[in-house]
Amino acid sequence: MNLAEHILNGDRKAVAKLITLVENNSPESIKQLSVLHSHCGKAHVIGVTGAPGCGKSSLIGKLTAEYRKLGKRVGIIAIDPTSPFTGGAFLGDRIRMQEHFTDKDIFIRSMGSRGSLGGIAKSTADTAKILDAFGKDIIFIETVGAGQADVEIAKIALTLLVVTMPGSGDDVQAIKAGILETGDIFVINKADIPGTEQAELYLEQMLNLTSYPAGKWKPRVMKTSASLNTGIAELVDAIQSHMEYLKKSGEIGAKLREKARVEFMALVKQNVTKYILEHVIKKGELEETIERIIKRQIDPYSAADELVERIFSE
Amino acid sequence: MNLAEHILNGDRKAVAKLITLVENNSPESIKQLSVLHSHCGKAHVIGVTGAPGCGKSSLIGKLTAEYRKLGKRVGIIAIDPTSPFTGGAFLGDRIRMQEHFTDKDIFIRSMGSRGSLGGIAKSTADTAKILDAFGKDIIFIETVGAGQADVEIAKIALTLLVVTMPGSGDDVQAIKAGILETGDIFVINKADIPGTEQAELYLEQMLNLTSYPAGKWKPRVMKTSASLNTGIAELVDAIQSHMEYLKKSGEIGAKLREKARVEFMALVKQNVTKYILEHVIKKGELEETIERIIKRQIDPYSAADELVERIFSE
Repeated sequence: MNLAEHILNGDRKAVAKLITLVENNSPESIKQLSVLHSHCGKAHVIGVTGAPGCGKSSLIGKLTAEYRKLGKRVGIIAIDPTSPFTGGAFLGDRIRMQEHFTDKDIFIRSMGSRGSLGGIAKSTADTAKILDAFGKDIIFIETVGAGQADVEIAKIALTLLVVTMPGSGDDVQAIKAGILETGDIFVINKADIPGTEQAELYLEQMLNLTSYPAGKWKPRVMKTSASLNTGIAELVDAIQSHMEYLKKSGEIGAKLREKARVEFMALVKQNVTKYILEHVIKKGELEETIERIIKRQIDPYSAADELVERIFSE
Repeated sequence: MNLAEHILNGDRKAVAKLITLVENNSPESIKQLSVLHSHCGKAHVIGVTGAPGCGKSSLIGKLTAEYRKLGKRVGIIAIDPTSPFTGGAFLGDRIRMQEHFTDKDIFIRSMGSRGSLGGIAKSTADTAKILDAFGKDIIFIETVGAGQADVEIAKIALTLLVVTMPGSGDDVQAIKAGILETGDIFVINKADIPGTEQAELYLEQMLNLTSYPAGKWKPRVMKTSASLNTGIAELVDAIQSHMEYLKKSGEIGAKLREKARVEFMALVKQNVTKYILEHVIKKGELEETIERIIKRQIDPYSAADELVERIFSE
């Protein structure tokens, strides 16, 4: 049996092994992913983004407990290197998460924070696929920060939660600046501390400034307290409503098509580049071109044009 | 005269115009950039990264004033959408920056926060080139956050400043988690508020945990107060020392070679993809492939393999 078959048979170790192969960009991982492809497409991938300290991990912990009560199997992919899920954080947090670490219907994995951003986005997308094929119903992707880059990674998700907390001016600034269009549900976490009403009012006002055509999803603002365990069931309901909206409106088809297109074109680019480096560019030729660019004997645009012309004229 | 010639003649409006073309990914921008290429390579590009609220913009403002005293011409590229340089922030900050906005030897530009991250990284790199050819001696690239993605963008820089402030636990966590290897100079800004010594001690300890081979640059920890205007001249000295190190050690050559390689390969990929979409894939064929992938009749890996094989067998 190969890795993919082991995974389809429910072998957790095989899942961990394949994710490592994916992270190492091993050619073997592609073989296994291509086998798994036909078994994907059932999971609801949920992105969770927000600044450090807003309680994303605790919130995911509570949501996971709620989904488990509903009989759902859960996968958690943490990209935040300071997340308790990655083991990089405070011991106390890890202990609070202990119940999840020992539940065999929950699979938790943190992605290495080394490597290029493109690499992390790709590893995350592939890991979500693996967990999907492995039978997880709900897959959380936790990314740090409310920056553009994290949103980029979170686009792998079908539903994006943007988590903030009362009184964090910076978060609100960040939300103002560009995330408003991307988030499907805004979560004011730690809603037991002062400033919750202002944060809610602010978010609602910002959302009201945007016009949503009839029939389009209007982002919701939800309040939760991971420590008091309030608002969690309501948030699960809101996530479910968003999925129903995606299905009813047909938007899910457009989202999946766009994801497939981006992935396919990235694979084509990657394969073409590999082929060029291995078969088209002669040994030492690349180094020579780079030297000429640095010495400003040729500009990179013309050099790339020349190469591509040669590739397709041969 | 074309845009590039206008820029080389010192026309600010032409600079702004070409940056807009770059942001719009216009084919014309490539023509102009290829003309400018031979005029680049003189600027010292300095990345400035740090969480919102740590005072990056004020610090860049003070550094700019210091460099202007030394007769240097300065370019500022802001990617942080909440930066006062982008006009998105508080009026007070903008007023404090006013002196720079009216100095004709300073060029300030904020990059749009829309578009993919790869797109922003490319626009930023091209804008740095334009400002370099325009004759700026010092070019600051301001990125928000201390996340992996921002570091990715900041890699365009020859010297990277990581800005933090006393008592911000999250920043320290973030630094611990992966930036330590990337920063050349760590700046504790707002060093007039309590907690400065602890932050300094912590950073020094973290740096001492890493071993730096003899002759290698060991990151420095500097203290500044943008509001009291202290530590600024010392920081400029440290930046200068880093540049001298890069030159003396020959590391600058390796850095420029790597940057050229990444840029060249990205251009090759882009051109190849364009050619494939325009000449190789037949009309409707791409949509058909995407549909088959979504319906799980074929996996994207095999589909990409098939296409690339066809391209190079023809």
